[in-house]
Amino acid sequence: MYIRNAWYAAGWCRDFGTELEPRMLLNERIVFYRTTAGQLVAQEDRCPHRLAPLSSGRIEGDNLRCMYHGLLFAPDGQCIKIPGQASIPATVCVRAYPVIERHGVAWIWMGEAKEANDSLIPDFQGPDHPDWSMIPGRMDYRANYQLIKDNLLDLSHIAWVHAASFGGGDATVSESWADMPVTITTIDRGVRVQRWGIDVPMPPYMAASTGLRGDMFNSYDFLIPGIFLLKTMIFPVGTAKELKDGEEPRIKPIFQSFTCQAVTPLTDRTSCYFFGFGPEGDNPELAKVYYDLAIAAFTEDRLMIEAQQEVIDSDPSRRMLPLAMDGAPRRYAGVLAKMQKAEAVHA
Amino acid sequence: MYIRNAWYAAGWCRDFGTELEPRMLLNERIVFYRTTAGQLVAQEDRCPHRLAPLSSGRIEGDNLRCMYHGLLFAPDGQCIKIPGQASIPATVCVRAYPVIERHGVAWIWMGEAKEANDSLIPDFQGPDHPDWSMIPGRMDYRANYQLIKDNLLDLSHIAWVHAASFGGGDATVSESWADMPVTITTIDRGVRVQRWGIDVPMPPYMAASTGLRGDMFNSYDFLIPGIFLLKTMIFPVGTAKELKDGEEPRIKPIFQSFTCQAVTPLTDRTSCYFFGFGPEGDNPELAKVYYDLAIAAFTEDRLMIEAQQEVIDSDPSRRMLPLAMDGAPRRYAGVLAKMQKAEAVHA
Amino acid sequence: MYIRNAWYAAGWCRDFGTELEPRMLLNERIVFYRTTAGQLVAQEDRCPHRLAPLSSGRIEGDNLRCMYHGLLFAPDGQCIKIPGQASIPATVCVRAYPVIERHGVAWIWMGEAKEANDSLIPDFQGPDHPDWSMIPGRMDYRANYQLIKDNLLDLSHIAWVHAASFGGGDATVSESWADMPVTITTIDRGVRVQRWGIDVPMPPYMAASTGLRGDMFNSYDFLIPGIFLLKTMIFPVGTAKELKDGEEPRIKPIFQSFTCQAVTPLTDRTSCYFFGFGPEGDNPELAKVYYDLAIAAFTEDRLMIEAQQEVIDSDPSRRMLPLAMDGAPRRYAGVLAKMQKAEAVHA
Repeated sequence: MYIRNAWYAAGWCRDFGTELEPRMLLNERIVFYRTTAGQLVAQEDRCPHRLAPLSSGRIEGDNLRCMYHGLLFAPDGQCIKIPGQASIPATVCVRAYPVIERHGVAWIWMGEAKEANDSLIPDFQGPDHPDWSMIPGRMDYRANYQLIKDNLLDLSHIAWVHAASFGGGDATVSESWADMPVTITTIDRGVRVQRWGIDVPMPPYMAASTGLRGDMFNSYDFLIPGIFLLKTMIFPVGTAKELKDGEEPRIKPIFQSFTCQAVTPLTDRTSCYFFGFGPEGDNPELAKVYYDLAIAAFTEDRLMIEAQQEVIDSDPSRRMLPLAMDGAPRRYAGVLAKMQKAEAVHA
Repeated sequence: MYIRNAWYAAGWCRDFGTELEPRMLLNERIVFYRTTAGQLVAQEDRCPHRLAPLSSGRIEGDNLRCMYHGLLFAPDGQCIKIPGQASIPATVCVRAYPVIERHGVAWIWMGEAKEANDSLIPDFQGPDHPDWSMIPGRMDYRANYQLIKDNLLDLSHIAWVHAASFGGGDATVSESWADMPVTITTIDRGVRVQRWGIDVPMPPYMAASTGLRGDMFNSYDFLIPGIFLLKTMIFPVGTAKELKDGEEPRIKPIFQSFTCQAVTPLTDRTSCYFFGFGPEGDNPELAKVYYDLAIAAFTEDRLMIEAQQEVIDSDPSRRMLPLAMDGAPRRYAGVLAKMQKAEAVHA
Repeated sequence: MYIRNAWYAAGWCRDFGTELEPRMLLNERIVFYRTTAGQLVAQEDRCPHRLAPLSSGRIEGDNLRCMYHGLLFAPDGQCIKIPGQASIPATVCVRAYPVIERHGVAWIWMGEAKEANDSLIPDFQGPDHPDWSMIPGRMDYRANYQLIKDNLLDLSHIAWVHAASFGGGDATVSESWADMPVTITTIDRGVRVQRWGIDVPMPPYMAASTGLRGDMFNSYDFLIPGIFLLKTMIFPVGTAKELKDGEEPRIKPIFQSFTCQAVTPLTDRTSCYFFGFGPEGDNPELAKVYYDLAIAAFTEDRLMIEAQQEVIDSDPSRRMLPLAMDGAPRRYAGVLAKMQKAEAVHA
């Protein structure tokens, strides 16, 4: 069951231009278009009359015409014209979804419209953020979104999956990820996971030359319904041991990167993964280096996860086996289950 | 449930040559071949022995040999040779279907053979008709035949779907279709739908120059199991108002066209659409113009209907919503339901 | 239900090199690799932790590393390393399958490992046999293995399916197969089928020139779980009638060929067919002729059987109709059913 009362990333704002844009989200067919004023509208992509897709229709000013038999719908979903029929029952309508564009992302609310609360939109530092340079990325998965979520919640996989990309082909860099202990904290609508790499070799994308070492602080929040906000900071060796347990460093790092990601279920077996990953400041050239690295690394994830999905589907009776490394996925599963239960009671 | 006691269009006669021709019809695998005398034979495409397809077999004179283990079948479906076995039980046979070739179409009877009645073959004016020029056309659909049937039963869709083709890109031509009132009559095994377009712009395929106006009389019969017979006639402006209510014009039209079409279910999600559409008289050049126009227009239908089928299949719990424009589909649904009920009682 | 206590052909030995080799067998995902000493290992291709495929992993010496989260497995299937976790429960393991390489084939035991008995490996005369020249062949089927088994158990199909290949296009050669009576004997774990072709034209692949005739003795064993061992011998005309009923000829044939084949179920709708078919002695040139003939003939089988599978799947309610020619398939079905019943009781 998908969480309904949440903002899902439907796409990057730049994906929605002057054409009708159909997207499948949480197994629902939705069509997006912009009004003459540029307001993004999201509606059920299904004419109630004979169930033709409105995305095969035509934008007429602020409204959307079904091009099968000509019904015309206003942005709020109400039908305002039925050819050959004078009166229009209020029941002739399509569902309209609240949409807000923020941080370069089009967020859609999948629950009851009256519950939509824009303070729940995460603090996503997207392509329009002044402090970071990032190229918006997208990857399509043939896998359930839960498998992607679990991948992000346990970064120890970097040791193996990303030996070639984030590890730069150096096992001492990548495999150091497997053994760093993590601190897991439950936060509002999610979990926070933090780890220190003490005196570790710096990842190659942060250091032009190899052989440099540092104390690496890595912290991420994973939030309902699938938002991943991660920062990585490198400090001089010795920084970590001067801090009290659980204390975050307050000094300026030698180097840092930030990545914002969102996983959106399309169907039960397809998902969309949106990501921005880039360096500080206005640095389009380095942003491209980060983007290329992200594509390489996230393709490694995708191939593993899609193969995992195939194995799962070949025998759905097999259960996963929790290990010590699964602390964060397990903690998040608890947060999710509690919220799902609350929605079920509410419904 | 498909109507069984009816003649379905299996194909154009010219489709059936000297080779075995397998066709799926109403979810049944059928193989067609011609005897030495040219008689078209239709049999179940499944050897009763080990269920191999007879369409992978060999025509031997008037008979059909299964090329897996050599059983030989006569045109009536009876097995007449089993290699290595002297006696042939009468139970070793395949179903044979009555087939009649008429109007350039191969009609197949899907019910009990003893019920087959050739007077039920519709008055299809096919490619061999002396008064019309038409090129036989065929289009394959990934959709249930009911969606195609409903499309044909409500021509108000011409206003939207065929704005570019039949409307010639002129909204005043195409959208005039949305508002013409129709007269619906129940006839034997079907419905008749008639409409007048009063002082409307002539469709471009009927008038070489634009700007001409006329009174358009449009009348079609839609018959069990999926036969569509439509004539369109253009008269001088003023003709319509001189006629009594429901009266058909008896004067010669300025221009007229005729189209015969047949929708045949192949499986529950595939259908075949046969059509002839052409001008009067012996006019192969204009027939080609009509044929090209039909391909363009029926492709518009096909894209819409296949998209509609996808939307329906993505959530089969959604029901269609009847509107005023659905009078003819609703009337025909009643005729069909009554006939289905009669067949169910009979069975 | 598949027989479990049997050796299935997983592949030719030469298929398994230094890379991980995933194969689906009896609906189970299995990964093969060789240890440093060259020993072939077969394990469940599914990490118990998060169900990722081990075939996306890495061979490390004699062990196999899951490259999702780094679990390391020994050849016996036991996990010997879990990153970030000191103790390893014995339950963290994958299933390991007994494998024996013999006669050029990698045989895998699909039942309980403790029941594995290498004396049950059939006397397959494979590519490494000193007395025969054969090129190992493989063909993939989109069909259940039972259909292939039944094809091999009734060679009367040669008359029709292989008119062009084994019959060399001469119906007097191929159709002679349809009427030869067969002797069927139940043997240990299978059936033996023998036939004499008395004064028949020699198959073209045995005689360079046409028109030669002989007495052909054809004998094959079909064994659980899908092993086919066939020899064909040509004797001077008159040889057969001098023998007592059921007696095998002891004189040296004019010509003989041998073929060993194995049918392995991959899934319920896919199968793998391994074959060696060649002449006596060290004759690589003639072995190539036989190989090409086998590919041509077995492609004829494959096309027929895949078409048969499609017909079956289009209406699973239809039953096959046993005829006189089905003696051997019927006898083998009895052997198989008895063994399936014994395994079911045992399980």
